[in-house]
Amino acid sequence: MIVNMSDKATEKEIAHIIERIREAGYTPHVTRGVERAIVAAVGNGRRHEIEALQVAPGVDNVMAIAQPFKLVSRQVKPEGTVVNVGGVAIGGPGVVVIAGPCSVESREQLFSTAEAIAKAGARVLRGGAFKPRSSPYSFQGHGEDALKLLREAGEKFKLLVISEVMEISQIPMMLPYVDILQLGARNMQNFNLLRELGKVRKPVLVKRGIAATFEELLLSAEYIMAGGNYDVILCERGIRTFETYTRNTMDISAIPIIHKLSHLPMTADPSHGTGRRDKVAPMARASVAAGADALLIEVHCDPNKAWSDGAQSLFPEQFAKLMDELRMIAPAVGRKVA
Amino acid sequence: MIVNMSDKATEKEIAHIIERIREAGYTPHVTRGVERAIVAAVGNGRRHEIEALQVAPGVDNVMAIAQPFKLVSRQVKPEGTVVNVGGVAIGGPGVVVIAGPCSVESREQLFSTAEAIAKAGARVLRGGAFKPRSSPYSFQGHGEDALKLLREAGEKFKLLVISEVMEISQIPMMLPYVDILQLGARNMQNFNLLRELGKVRKPVLVKRGIAATFEELLLSAEYIMAGGNYDVILCERGIRTFETYTRNTMDISAIPIIHKLSHLPMTADPSHGTGRRDKVAPMARASVAAGADALLIEVHCDPNKAWSDGAQSLFPEQFAKLMDELRMIAPAVGRKVA
Amino acid sequence: MIVNMSDKATEKEIAHIIERIREAGYTPHVTRGVERAIVAAVGNGRRHEIEALQVAPGVDNVMAIAQPFKLVSRQVKPEGTVVNVGGVAIGGPGVVVIAGPCSVESREQLFSTAEAIAKAGARVLRGGAFKPRSSPYSFQGHGEDALKLLREAGEKFKLLVISEVMEISQIPMMLPYVDILQLGARNMQNFNLLRELGKVRKPVLVKRGIAATFEELLLSAEYIMAGGNYDVILCERGIRTFETYTRNTMDISAIPIIHKLSHLPMTADPSHGTGRRDKVAPMARASVAAGADALLIEVHCDPNKAWSDGAQSLFPEQFAKLMDELRMIAPAVGRKVA
Amino acid sequence: MIVNMSDKATEKEIAHIIERIREAGYTPHVTRGVERAIVAAVGNGRRHEIEALQVAPGVDNVMAIAQPFKLVSRQVKPEGTVVNVGGVAIGGPGVVVIAGPCSVESREQLFSTAEAIAKAGARVLRGGAFKPRSSPYSFQGHGEDALKLLREAGEKFKLLVISEVMEISQIPMMLPYVDILQLGARNMQNFNLLRELGKVRKPVLVKRGIAATFEELLLSAEYIMAGGNYDVILCERGIRTFETYTRNTMDISAIPIIHKLSHLPMTADPSHGTGRRDKVAPMARASVAAGADALLIEVHCDPNKAWSDGAQSLFPEQFAKLMDELRMIAPAVGRKVA
Repeated sequence: MIVNMSDKATEKEIAHIIERIREAGYTPHVTRGVERAIVAAVGNGRRHEIEALQVAPGVDNVMAIAQPFKLVSRQVKPEGTVVNVGGVAIGGPGVVVIAGPCSVESREQLFSTAEAIAKAGARVLRGGAFKPRSSPYSFQGHGEDALKLLREAGEKFKLLVISEVMEISQIPMMLPYVDILQLGARNMQNFNLLRELGKVRKPVLVKRGIAATFEELLLSAEYIMAGGNYDVILCERGIRTFETYTRNTMDISAIPIIHKLSHLPMTADPSHGTGRRDKVAPMARASVAAGADALLIEVHCDPNKAWSDGAQSLFPEQFAKLMDELRMIAPAVGRKVA
Repeated sequence: MIVNMSDKATEKEIAHIIERIREAGYTPHVTRGVERAIVAAVGNGRRHEIEALQVAPGVDNVMAIAQPFKLVSRQVKPEGTVVNVGGVAIGGPGVVVIAGPCSVESREQLFSTAEAIAKAGARVLRGGAFKPRSSPYSFQGHGEDALKLLREAGEKFKLLVISEVMEISQIPMMLPYVDILQLGARNMQNFNLLRELGKVRKPVLVKRGIAATFEELLLSAEYIMAGGNYDVILCERGIRTFETYTRNTMDISAIPIIHKLSHLPMTADPSHGTGRRDKVAPMARASVAAGADALLIEVHCDPNKAWSDGAQSLFPEQFAKLMDELRMIAPAVGRKVA
Repeated sequence: MIVNMSDKATEKEIAHIIERIREAGYTPHVTRGVERAIVAAVGNGRRHEIEALQVAPGVDNVMAIAQPFKLVSRQVKPEGTVVNVGGVAIGGPGVVVIAGPCSVESREQLFSTAEAIAKAGARVLRGGAFKPRSSPYSFQGHGEDALKLLREAGEKFKLLVISEVMEISQIPMMLPYVDILQLGARNMQNFNLLRELGKVRKPVLVKRGIAATFEELLLSAEYIMAGGNYDVILCERGIRTFETYTRNTMDISAIPIIHKLSHLPMTADPSHGTGRRDKVAPMARASVAAGADALLIEVHCDPNKAWSDGAQSLFPEQFAKLMDELRMIAPAVGRKVA
Repeated sequence: MIVNMSDKATEKEIAHIIERIREAGYTPHVTRGVERAIVAAVGNGRRHEIEALQVAPGVDNVMAIAQPFKLVSRQVKPEGTVVNVGGVAIGGPGVVVIAGPCSVESREQLFSTAEAIAKAGARVLRGGAFKPRSSPYSFQGHGEDALKLLREAGEKFKLLVISEVMEISQIPMMLPYVDILQLGARNMQNFNLLRELGKVRKPVLVKRGIAATFEELLLSAEYIMAGGNYDVILCERGIRTFETYTRNTMDISAIPIIHKLSHLPMTADPSHGTGRRDKVAPMARASVAAGADALLIEVHCDPNKAWSDGAQSLFPEQFAKLMDELRMIAPAVGRKVA
């Protein structure tokens, strides 16, 4: 931590800061410039007491030096994590495509969609059983029945299964059905749920919250890893900005940035990232070009009739065409579509 | 719902939209302008099928007409809700001040702070027992022990008690200790928790998420009211913007806007809204001038030693001075400090 | 400037940074912590060369210590600037109210509005002669004719005159007509225009850009002061956020923050800050409660017929009522309405 | 325009709106739903009078139907514009790469950089002569001397030349030296400058402002086209969001969205879009994969010594490698590098 003194700070104010840093358990180091002094707090002390100095007399601001995350950092594991699950490697040389409907509506809808995506080259089937809907009056998902259908479809079409968990009590029920648990953007800072996911021994895909900084996303992953679950996958799915033409603004730069800061695999969800079917393919291609390890894409056998997210779901033939384009782009970044 | 056709839309495309609107259970009404047609979907049908038309051929965009919330709307209860709890009326002519430390650290800290705020005129004691911390390595709260201390301090100094609930399983444990349950900004869209809070028969104060629109805040309140709990209080506590000088940008306009859209009481939290002690008083005054029904203010008997949020906690004497200022401002909006 | 080394930085990388800091004209000071080193660049050197080190090997990030602005800083003039113009003091004990229509439409409209605001207690008349309109097809203002009317109305009703300048070539033409030049939010970083305004010897009111940080606002004022014009007034008029219910999100916290960082008077424009007539009064009251030195308020004798900004203009009787409320609030912050 | 009445609106309020719509020169069309009425204003009237109805009694909100831009719209020219300049076609099958230093510093710096980019396959040389710097104390550019060097380097290495114009008075001086005029993000809504650029008969590249919506970007282009200059090129260069790790958040989705809304060529600037050298290549690749017609990339022969933007400038060898990657990606979208 560095305490940056004002250029009007008195010697008494500087001395007071030095004393407070010592009281907080750190060793103070003063550097005096032409106009002002900075005081570094070195060692391991009570960080919150230094943070509180930002409003002390004579202080301009307080700056953190060390990144607050540890286990997720690229610095502890420079070579990168590969999450291996059911024969699929996320974070390896292959770009893994996860696809399927927003929510599981019926056996026909799910199986028809699953067959199409498997044929086009997807490796994992997505589908919502519990839906986080902003209105209490919207369809909330078929629950365990949906999970059973997902498992059955996954086995039939040789696809792994991923589905979203919304609540601690759903975890034990979901585990037999899914290969990967998905944590939604709205729950990225549901810390109690994060802690429970740290006790699970299946991979967790963590979506970035719509207003979450990279640091906050990584701290959420840190919660899970601190609990002993090291198979964490991160996902960019759009952030909220002033622009309202799209549902969200998909931040493609998150892909290379997270890859620099962390060893965890980084995936992209262009369906939620844009909210519009005609923008999904360009953003999926952009994600692979930027280095994404996996993609989540909403596909529906009949998007016009979808119970949720119809406007952003691809038709099966659009998805197949996109897969062909991705196969052309992946080699430019030394990858192939898994 | 209104489907706004492109000015290049063909008659066939318009006819297709009309048919799709009918299929979705609505009655279509076409208005033809000089350059383009609009098709209104009148009645009650499957809204998601109309939303999906935004990417249909010949369509420019789809616009919702009706507000998606009902029970929280000012239109169903023009006179405004007053939440009465333990002799305190929130939403009435008195401006209620809620104060206390960010987290309960010790009996001494809590009782010393509670005594000071009661003397200065606060009516409700706040204090965190469970802390939503972005890092797994930060202090996470003293749990039930903290709640016991809050109850005891509340009774001693004649203050009601409010504390934050983070997880469904905490609700039954907390109910005996608190008068008002607080739902934090990060849990504003934890829909499972919202549903459980709808079953409770104590008031719930819902904080606006850092990236939540007014509509989303009201929909979260709608979840609770739809469950049968009508004592909901809303709270502005700062939103995330590009500006980083303050922790958040406190949106004072939320106060008159929520008052227009909803009958629920609207409160303001200038401590989290700014994150800096020296900005709390100006923003508290501004909130009352803008019509806030209540204020949440962090006060600590020794902010420099606070375990969390020290930089934004007021010293007791600052709080007392602020209360005097608020007493001068309230009459300008036809109120008094409760 | 501080260069924060990675905790994996090698001795060679640290030595390289030290050398680069020396080359850039600074003296390097190294502080070694338990996990990492920081290197401060002390003195006066080529700042851009240090900034470029943020992507050098072994570097985590580079942090600026000194504020980049000088003349506008509160540190050079702790007592605060009072801009005296035509018998009105902005920044003194009186809160100055500036009011008038968005654009000058006709003699009748302007004089009728001016008479009403003067009677209610405003001291300065605002009115647009050149309008910055996002569409080339919207009304662009009456130009010099509008300025003549403003001057005439100002003299008749004993009001000072403020109007917006959009282009360097307009400055000499405007000077005889106006007492204060207004720089609009969209031109806050029109650096050529700022430089020319530095040569003028009339006060300039600088509006914060819709995405401008406090630092950027102050740097724009610095351009004007660096040119020798010390009568600069700052103004908050709303920033762009994700919320679309209001035209902008008015950042009331800008008032106390600018007052802390700078000695310049700080004003607030609740009309553009909200874009909705029914929100202007609450936000005007909030601004005064937060310490604003002046207010800019759009008033129109017949807002329903206004050629621009009709939805945010007050009716004259609403303005008079607001002035009464402000007279009640000002004493709470040790002020009165001027 | 559509006026959306509240579900509590009285018949009298509806009648009032109908009358006001008629007074504003439109024909009113009423559609009555189960819960509420909407009134469409059909024809051509005074739009601002309808906009002002948003705060009229009984009105929930007012929605615009028609896009406010005309000449830039894809609907008037479905086939797309190709800007042909000096043998280079922007908007055609070839992806055009524009490269060069942020600012022209010296003959050696410029020629060395120009030679490297020409060899690697760039077609246009960029370089700043006038620099829009947020601080008045930063390097402001070499002016006309820089333009002369650009012209000379362009001719020597067979590169077209682009440079930024900041002020109306610079236009005639710049025209002999440059092939394309660049309008910077901070001037995107400098409407007087836009109008003058409409009179020029050379292409203008318009950068999106950091807080500009797509609609605002297109309206700025509309200003230029309305003046008779049809050779307008648009550019995404990053928007301002809450995330501060990067200088801006580059909005790759702007590329397919602008391509849908407008016939104008769309380019991308990953250097300003990210502000960090190590993120430029991934974002450049992503831009081409998303369909960009051209790229602007900062390259410097010695970035560590750059007078501005050093951290985001590529080394020449990094640029050459990137060009090879782009040549692999372009065919996936049916393009090649020009």
